[in-house]
Amino acid sequence: MNLQLPKGTRDFPPEEKILRDKLIGSLKVVFERYGFNPLETPMFERFDVLGAKYAGGAEILKETFKFQDQGKRDLALRYDLTVPFARFVGMNPQLKFPFKRYAIGRVFRDGPIKLGRYREFYQCDVDVVGSKSMLADAECVRIAVAGFKELGVPVTISVNNRKLLDELLEKGGVQKEKVAEAMLVLDKIKKVGLDEVKKELKEKGINEDSVNFIVELSTQENTNQEKIAKVKAFLGDETEGLKELSELFSYLEGVENVKYDPSLARGLEYYTGTVFEGFAKESKVTSSICGGGRYDNMVPALLESKLEYPAVGISFGLEPIMDVLKEQEKETKKTIVKAFVIPIKNGKECIPIVEQLRAAGISADMDLNGKSISKNLDYANSYGIPFVLICGPKELEQGKVKLKDMTSGDESMLSVEDAVKRLK
Amino acid sequence: MNLQLPKGTRDFPPEEKILRDKLIGSLKVVFERYGFNPLETPMFERFDVLGAKYAGGAEILKETFKFQDQGKRDLALRYDLTVPFARFVGMNPQLKFPFKRYAIGRVFRDGPIKLGRYREFYQCDVDVVGSKSMLADAECVRIAVAGFKELGVPVTISVNNRKLLDELLEKGGVQKEKVAEAMLVLDKIKKVGLDEVKKELKEKGINEDSVNFIVELSTQENTNQEKIAKVKAFLGDETEGLKELSELFSYLEGVENVKYDPSLARGLEYYTGTVFEGFAKESKVTSSICGGGRYDNMVPALLESKLEYPAVGISFGLEPIMDVLKEQEKETKKTIVKAFVIPIKNGKECIPIVEQLRAAGISADMDLNGKSISKNLDYANSYGIPFVLICGPKELEQGKVKLKDMTSGDESMLSVEDAVKRLK
Repeated sequence: MNLQLPKGTRDFPPEEKILRDKLIGSLKVVFERYGFNPLETPMFERFDVLGAKYAGGAEILKETFKFQDQGKRDLALRYDLTVPFARFVGMNPQLKFPFKRYAIGRVFRDGPIKLGRYREFYQCDVDVVGSKSMLADAECVRIAVAGFKELGVPVTISVNNRKLLDELLEKGGVQKEKVAEAMLVLDKIKKVGLDEVKKELKEKGINEDSVNFIVELSTQENTNQEKIAKVKAFLGDETEGLKELSELFSYLEGVENVKYDPSLARGLEYYTGTVFEGFAKESKVTSSICGGGRYDNMVPALLESKLEYPAVGISFGLEPIMDVLKEQEKETKKTIVKAFVIPIKNGKECIPIVEQLRAAGISADMDLNGKSISKNLDYANSYGIPFVLICGPKELEQGKVKLKDMTSGDESMLSVEDAVKRLK
Repeated sequence: MNLQLPKGTRDFPPEEKILRDKLIGSLKVVFERYGFNPLETPMFERFDVLGAKYAGGAEILKETFKFQDQGKRDLALRYDLTVPFARFVGMNPQLKFPFKRYAIGRVFRDGPIKLGRYREFYQCDVDVVGSKSMLADAECVRIAVAGFKELGVPVTISVNNRKLLDELLEKGGVQKEKVAEAMLVLDKIKKVGLDEVKKELKEKGINEDSVNFIVELSTQENTNQEKIAKVKAFLGDETEGLKELSELFSYLEGVENVKYDPSLARGLEYYTGTVFEGFAKESKVTSSICGGGRYDNMVPALLESKLEYPAVGISFGLEPIMDVLKEQEKETKKTIVKAFVIPIKNGKECIPIVEQLRAAGISADMDLNGKSISKNLDYANSYGIPFVLICGPKELEQGKVKLKDMTSGDESMLSVEDAVKRLK
C-alpha cells in the first residue's frame, strides 16, 4: 500500500480531533440555542447544480472535483454549503419561512496548496432564509458574539452595510461605475494602510478625496451612535442603507464589541446589505474568524426563481478558530482517557473496576496486553492520561486501588468508590 | 438549477438530522467512556491505497467513485473506514499500542440502489489495534451492550469464534477444503431454516450429519457455560478456538444478553477469531444492528508489512439503528426550538426576552417577520415547537409574558424568570 494522503488533505489524529470536536460541539450548542436547526446534504451534488449559472462561478468550477457514477451522470464534490442549501430550499417548497439552519461539514476545492489552504476543509454556516427584517441580521451578529463567548475567544465584530457604503461613495463623489472598484480598494485599508489605498485609487482614476469621509470615520474613536449621526449629517438624508444599519444597531443595543466599520466591504461577493466580519482580540491570528452578511438575490438567482428568498447568514472559520484555540491551550490533549487501570496480575479482576469508572461517566481504559507496571506507566504517560489506578493483589484484597496522579506523582490508597469521587 | 439529488444520496432535513445527531452523540459518549479516541481521515484517498492488493477487493473497487485532481493523481471516495484506518496506522509508526479509535463518517459505493441501500451512507466503527488479548474482544462486546443501553435499544449479541467453528466442522467430519463452504451455508440457518441448510449442504457434497452437533447446540436453550462444556466434551480437547471463546466469556461475566451462537460466521470476511453480531429485540428491524470481530491478518496484509497488527473491532449500523429508534419515537421532532417568542407590536422589545431564554440554555426563537399572532401560532405549530411566549404591550407593562403550552393549550401569565424555570 502506498502510504500517502491525497495532496491537500489531512488526517485528524486524536490530539487534533478532540479539540475540533470540542469546538464544533460548542458551536452546535449555541446554534441550537439560537433556534437554528441542523441540516445535512450529500458530500457531492449533480454537476449541473454546482455549475448552475448563478452558483460558484467560473473560478470555483475550475477547482471542482468532478466525476461520474456508473450511469455516466456528472457529479462533483461540493465546494461550499450554500449552493446545496439553496438546492434544498428549492426542492422543499413546503418549508415554512423563515427557515433557520446550520450546517457544519467538509467542502472540497482542487486548488493550489498554500500554508493553511487545503483541498478538503470545513465550513460552518448558519443562515436564515425568508426574512427581510434586520432582526434576522441582528440574530447573526448576536450568534457570533454568543459563539465566541462560549468558546472563550475574545472577539471584535465589524459591521457595515453595502448599500450604505455605496451611498457614501457616491455622495463623496465617486462615479457610479467606479463605486465597486473604490469599494474593493477601500476594503483593504486595514491590510495595506491609507497611503497605499490613496495610491490605488489614483491609479484607478478615482479622486482620493472622495473617500475622505469614510476614511476619517473609520479612524475616529466614536461610538456607533456617534458615527451613525455623522453619516446622517454627511448624507443629509435618511437613505435606505443608513436606515438598515441604524435599525440593525438598534437591535444590537447592549451587545459589546460590535463596531460599525464604514470601510468594510467583504470583497465583491454576493452581499446586498449588511456585511460583518469578526477578528480575535489578543491573538496572533490576523485573518477573520467569522464573516457573513445579507444576500437577498442569491437564492432566487441560483434557483432561477421569481419568488423572493431574502437571506442572511454567518460563516464561522473553523480553521482560524482552531489556531486561536491552540494558542490558548497550555497543553494539547492527546486522549480523552482520564483514568487508566493497571492490573498487577490478572486483567480479569480489573474489569469490574474499569466498568465502575465508566458507569460513573469517567472515560476509562485498562491494560489489555499484560504489560509490566513500568511499561503501563510509560504508556499512560505517552498519551498524557492524567490518572492511573494500580490494582495489585494487596490492593484488591483490601478492596482498594492505588490512585496515582500522573502530573503530581501523588499516590493514595482508596476504595473504588472514593477513587470515582476523586476523579469526578 | 436542476433541482435533483445525485442518485442514491439523501438530504437529512432537521426532522431526520436531529435524531441522527442524538444517536451519534450518544454513541460518541459511550465510545469515549470506553477509552476510544476520535480519528478522522479524508473523504477520499489515493486510488492506489483503496485499490491495494489486500484492500476491499475487486467487487468493492467496481463500486468506487474514482476521479482525478488537477495534477492527474488518481483518487477515490472512501468505501469504508477500515482501509483509511490501516493507512493511518501504517503512516504513524510512533503510535503506542494498543491504539483504540472510533470513526463515524460517510462512505461511498457506486452500487445498485435498493430499498435501504444508498450510495452515500454512514459507517460507525470502533477498533483496537495492537492487542491479541481476548480482553480487547471483550471490550468490543461490552461497548455494544453499553451503547445500546445508552440508546435504550434492547439487544441480543450473538458471539462465536471462527477458529472454533472450523474445529467443530472438522471434528464433525467436514473435509478441510469444504469447511469454508459449510460455514457459509450454516451461517444462514436463522434466515432459511434447518431444512434448507441441509439441502444446500447435500448439494455441495457435504454430509449433513457433520453439522448436527452445531445445529443441536444452536437450538438448545443452554447457558453459555453449559454450551462451552458440551463443546469441550465433543472436541475432547481444549482447542485454540475453544480456549479463546472460553476466555472471552470469562471476561463477559455478568454481562446480560450475550449468547454463544455456534453457527454464526459473518460471511467470508476477514475475521480470524471472535465474531459477533447484535440484533434488536422487540423490533421489526430484522437486520443486524451491530457486528464485528477479530481480524489479526488484515492490517499487516494491507500494509504488506511483516509487523504484527492484531486487531478487533465493532461496527454500529447507524441506518438500522435509526429505523429502530424511529419505531420507538412517538413523534418525530421537527425542530430543536423549545420556545418561540411572539411580539404583539415591536420585535425589538422581545430581544431581551429571547436572549434571556437562550442564556438559560433554552433553545429559543422569535418572530422575525412581524407576522400576526395567529400566523405565528400556525408557524410554531407547523414545526411542532412545544411552547410559545406571547409578549403584548399589556404583558410587557407588567413585566410578564404569556406562556402557552402548544400541546395542552394551557396559558399562564408569568415573569420571564418564572417562564424560564417552567421551561427548564
